[in-house]
Amino acid sequence: MEFTVNQIAQMLGGEVMGSGDERISMLAKIQDARRGQIAFLSNPKYEQFIYSTEATAVIVRKDFAPRKEVRATLIKVEDPYVSFTTLLEEYHKLISFQKSGVEEPCYVGENSTVGNNAYRGAFSYIGNNCHIGNNVKIYPHAYVGDNVRIGSDTILHSGVKIYPDTVIGNNVVVHSGTVIGSDGFGFAQQEDGSYKTIPQLGKVIIEDNVTIGANTVIDCATFASDATVIRAGVKLDNLIQVAHNVEIGRNTVIAAQTGISGSTKVGENCMLAGQVGIAGHLVIANNTSLGAQAGVSKSITKEGQRLLGYPVFDIKEYFRSYAVFKKLPDLNYRLKELENKVKSLVNHT
Amino acid sequence: MEFTVNQIAQMLGGEVMGSGDERISMLAKIQDARRGQIAFLSNPKYEQFIYSTEATAVIVRKDFAPRKEVRATLIKVEDPYVSFTTLLEEYHKLISFQKSGVEEPCYVGENSTVGNNAYRGAFSYIGNNCHIGNNVKIYPHAYVGDNVRIGSDTILHSGVKIYPDTVIGNNVVVHSGTVIGSDGFGFAQQEDGSYKTIPQLGKVIIEDNVTIGANTVIDCATFASDATVIRAGVKLDNLIQVAHNVEIGRNTVIAAQTGISGSTKVGENCMLAGQVGIAGHLVIANNTSLGAQAGVSKSITKEGQRLLGYPVFDIKEYFRSYAVFKKLPDLNYRLKELENKVKSLVNHT
Amino acid sequence: MEFTVNQIAQMLGGEVMGSGDERISMLAKIQDARRGQIAFLSNPKYEQFIYSTEATAVIVRKDFAPRKEVRATLIKVEDPYVSFTTLLEEYHKLISFQKSGVEEPCYVGENSTVGNNAYRGAFSYIGNNCHIGNNVKIYPHAYVGDNVRIGSDTILHSGVKIYPDTVIGNNVVVHSGTVIGSDGFGFAQQEDGSYKTIPQLGKVIIEDNVTIGANTVIDCATFASDATVIRAGVKLDNLIQVAHNVEIGRNTVIAAQTGISGSTKVGENCMLAGQVGIAGHLVIANNTSLGAQAGVSKSITKEGQRLLGYPVFDIKEYFRSYAVFKKLPDLNYRLKELENKVKSLVNHT
Repeated sequence: MEFTVNQIAQMLGGEVMGSGDERISMLAKIQDARRGQIAFLSNPKYEQFIYSTEATAVIVRKDFAPRKEVRATLIKVEDPYVSFTTLLEEYHKLISFQKSGVEEPCYVGENSTVGNNAYRGAFSYIGNNCHIGNNVKIYPHAYVGDNVRIGSDTILHSGVKIYPDTVIGNNVVVHSGTVIGSDGFGFAQQEDGSYKTIPQLGKVIIEDNVTIGANTVIDCATFASDATVIRAGVKLDNLIQVAHNVEIGRNTVIAAQTGISGSTKVGENCMLAGQVGIAGHLVIANNTSLGAQAGVSKSITKEGQRLLGYPVFDIKEYFRSYAVFKKLPDLNYRLKELENKVKSLVNHT
Repeated sequence: MEFTVNQIAQMLGGEVMGSGDERISMLAKIQDARRGQIAFLSNPKYEQFIYSTEATAVIVRKDFAPRKEVRATLIKVEDPYVSFTTLLEEYHKLISFQKSGVEEPCYVGENSTVGNNAYRGAFSYIGNNCHIGNNVKIYPHAYVGDNVRIGSDTILHSGVKIYPDTVIGNNVVVHSGTVIGSDGFGFAQQEDGSYKTIPQLGKVIIEDNVTIGANTVIDCATFASDATVIRAGVKLDNLIQVAHNVEIGRNTVIAAQTGISGSTKVGENCMLAGQVGIAGHLVIANNTSLGAQAGVSKSITKEGQRLLGYPVFDIKEYFRSYAVFKKLPDLNYRLKELENKVKSLVNHT
Repeated sequence: MEFTVNQIAQMLGGEVMGSGDERISMLAKIQDARRGQIAFLSNPKYEQFIYSTEATAVIVRKDFAPRKEVRATLIKVEDPYVSFTTLLEEYHKLISFQKSGVEEPCYVGENSTVGNNAYRGAFSYIGNNCHIGNNVKIYPHAYVGDNVRIGSDTILHSGVKIYPDTVIGNNVVVHSGTVIGSDGFGFAQQEDGSYKTIPQLGKVIIEDNVTIGANTVIDCATFASDATVIRAGVKLDNLIQVAHNVEIGRNTVIAAQTGISGSTKVGENCMLAGQVGIAGHLVIANNTSLGAQAGVSKSITKEGQRLLGYPVFDIKEYFRSYAVFKKLPDLNYRLKELENKVKSLVNHT
């Protein structure tokens, strides 16, 4: 799959400076790129590389003025990073092996329907009474339990497990090993100290344009009338725990290994770093940003805060406190010294 | 599946106040319930909802005396929460699609036996020399290695992986993606800095009535004569790490993303919150309660403590220390001020 | 499978003290061993057990001189621990059910080749254009996407998921549920607050002699010319997160539930304990040791440090600071007392 620089410039609405007939077959970073590849320059810190790169073409900002000779052909655009991303996406669509059709053996239960142009990999499983949209890809070893509804253009990678009654929207991507709809962690203690399982009868709803990483777990809600809900546009990384009855607001992004306890509502446009923990039955305001390994034990009501620590408080204050924490033995020593001095002063007076 | 209020009251040993002939088809929370549904009122904080609920019936405490008019029929019981849980359980048994029989293709090796009334999903795998009890459900893509023994009424959800030689009791539930019996993490460093794998020959024993969440991992013991043991009644959440030779005592409950290092023995009736870490070769006393993200680096010998921090100490003391931690920059400033004052005092005297 | 003590001594190059004709069928720890079993004594702390053990034979250090009567036959060697490990390994090879051949049904795509003496379990999946070496074991439900290359003597346990284009070396072991090559977590925020997925086109390279635990995730690199790289001899435990474009240096060992963010380079011979978190775009020097739950937010440039805390600093200093942290309420009280005393002193003068 090859394009000329001119073809690419046209795709991006960019202006060509140099030879537009050269051929491009691959995308690369400016510091690594070779002949036949295209790169981009967005961050001025990387400007040095444009004078030495072997790339055939480089996408640059409209107003970029080279201070030395540049061998590569330039494509000038509004925003090089956005253009490069667009290109990556097109490239991805073109080169990725466009899986479609049905590999045997695979299993479909009774009363289930699958839309047009689907891919169903070998050993994939679809239970009874499922309704699955168009252009869906269900990779090998994916499991879809009974009564599941899935929209169009959604991808379940190999080994994804969807429990019965789950509802998944359009254009959702779920990576390998992720489990959706497993039982919430609910037990009632008995008089003898043992625990009785509280049946988990609710479901999980995943709205449109959600992406979920690998080996993440999203539990179902407890009551039949309830759902654990992942709102449209949410992005979840790998190995995340989302407990029963949690709701995650639109366009919130959560990094790997974070855990959210039962019945907590996370707002919209939040950014949760990795290994964060949030206790149950809390509300987290919109636009909240939580630093790595933060622990949240109370609701966060004010929007737009950046927090850290366990329990969390303002991230800048955390670092100021931590700077003193590192000197605590010295502080303790100074306090003791001072106590002695004051004692001797008191004795003197 | 419908019941009359009278039938439900009989099931619960409760007393009906109102029309016992109305029909119930679903359980719901008191604030959400509609006609045809039954709810419960246990926590007085929710009393307000009983005056507005559309529920056909509400389970209440024996001594509940409404302060306003209530439209719903009441069922009076000793403990509404316990009754509701009982009902949920019955309901669950009745409505859940009672999987049984064998879906093809599925695989069974040589010399393996499976009891009566089992469900074996498509693409499930049972190795050689396995002995599996009655009423067991093995969902699609579950893997049972050679020489595994499983009791009766146990459920392996889709994609569960059981390594060879594992022993699993009766009435155990294992959720999707969980791995039991993988190699313990043991390596011997060689002179050149590389590591040689120490073969892991032990097994895992899961006793009766254990519930294990999704994507959890339980490693096998190192020596052939040893086992990693999960005692009866233990409840493990999702994404938990249980290393080689660990033992977890009866009725201990562990929340998501907690990790227990090799050879540690956790006592009975402990409560471990989420993201807790416990170092290897320790003993944790019975009835220990560990707060979220706690780190344990020494054995805990006194029973019944509530601990937090890294390393852990008393949870109340942790919060008292942390309150001062948040003011450390101020403390540091005050100390400096005082040093200056004392210095000038010393100079004056 | 039985051996005489003499046969084992010969295997280990050891000297027999006692009856060499006795038969051994199993390995065990010295405190647990029974007749017919062999144990070892390396750590002097365990010497007491050699006088009471029922083991038929015990491997001891060359210069071991019993202080009481020992019933077991002794095998004297240079290093008893190393010898025992060797024995375990041999034993493992001999007793482990030597899986080979092909169980049906299993799937192989077009233009893929598998070397000699392979095991391919039922429901295993190999995509198109894959090249797989000799003596490879691919357990049931393992998934190998298109264009994957795998060396010889590598084992993929049940349910391992290998995304397309991954490269895996010789003698690699991957435990159940681990995902290799899933998309890196990369999204570009749009003007309306939503996120657009940045296509992840790079791959993962796993070099020789790497061992990876269960339910771990290793994401692919972002650009087609890049790779996430796990160097030779690395040992990864369970439930670890390795983000896109990460590189882990030779013989580095990482314990369970640790997470490494995108583009970070971890050096050689590092030891990372459990639940450690490392931010993105950092460099971690060779021989760095990170304590459990440590959080790393800046590059570590000096080799050989032992670090703890969040953010990390010297582990001994951390514990010294933490000792004062536990007494902070007292410190605060003493400071207040002193302020009062000084105030009254000032008033007096």
